[in-house]
Amino acid sequence: MTDEQVKQPEEQVEEEQQPEQEVDDRLLRLAADFENYKKRAARERQEYVRLANERLIVELIPILDDLERALSAAEQHEEAQLEEGVRLVHRSLAGLLERHGVKPIETEGQFDPHVHEALLSQPSEAEEGSVIDVVQKGYKLGDRVVRPARVVVAAPPREEPSGDA
Amino acid sequence: MTDEQVKQPEEQVEEEQQPEQEVDDRLLRLAADFENYKKRAARERQEYVRLANERLIVELIPILDDLERALSAAEQHEEAQLEEGVRLVHRSLAGLLERHGVKPIETEGQFDPHVHEALLSQPSEAEEGSVIDVVQKGYKLGDRVVRPARVVVAAPPREEPSGDA
Repeated sequence: MTDEQVKQPEEQVEEEQQPEQEVDDRLLRLAADFENYKKRAARERQEYVRLANERLIVELIPILDDLERALSAAEQHEEAQLEEGVRLVHRSLAGLLERHGVKPIETEGQFDPHVHEALLSQPSEAEEGSVIDVVQKGYKLGDRVVRPARVVVAAPPREEPSGDA
Repeated sequence: MTDEQVKQPEEQVEEEQQPEQEVDDRLLRLAADFENYKKRAARERQEYVRLANERLIVELIPILDDLERALSAAEQHEEAQLEEGVRLVHRSLAGLLERHGVKPIETEGQFDPHVHEALLSQPSEAEEGSVIDVVQKGYKLGDRVVRPARVVVAAPPREEPSGDA
């Protein structure tokens, strides 16, 4: 009987601690999962960057090949082949950039400060404020300007010096 | 007395539940943090890929410029300038790939199936199993082969047909 009386309170305490203990275990497990997730996420981030770069890099290698072929044509003074090779390389690189979301910036029409950079303005017969020359092409990547187009803008036509003093 | 006897167990239960409640709150907070972290990690992964690609893409645009300059030299039949332009583009692209961890695969010496692909083997005076010609250069990205070097391997020298029947 005394044995039972000694045991009973202990069992009661155990029963009352059980849910708390369970929550405590879940807390520890969750904290451990969280830590592991963080480590894995950091690794995966690096891996994603590596893979994203790798896809692009693998696409660039054949372009390097074509450039090397063009250079050996140059060494053998095969000018037509050199020129054809350069055209091929240009098409390949422009195509690669296009596939990756790069688009040349339009320069027709009015100067647009969001996508154009005015290098100078010149008196012109063209409409005032329109782009009259492109010094360096600009590019967008998706909706972002990665390089504005550097342009010359039409100033109002220069007035003829009048005879009036 | 009965009041006290009724209250006491309640108080005891409350005292025992307090740390449990605290652990429970911590569990909920941790679970919420974990969820938020997961969402942020997924967003960041996409962002990292975009940025990694963008860095490479932005580096490619000046190479496209140089190619276009080379092409206009070609149109004006300025052969020396065209050739110089192609050399410049080649140096730029090779440099870019090198900076991003790309290395040409060595082809001196013995054939190595880990990095070479044998297109054919030819009787040769060179040591048997050595690389005697490179048909296409190979490249590594870090320690990984992104393209094996395609090579010709030395077979044992052809035996002179003997007069013996």
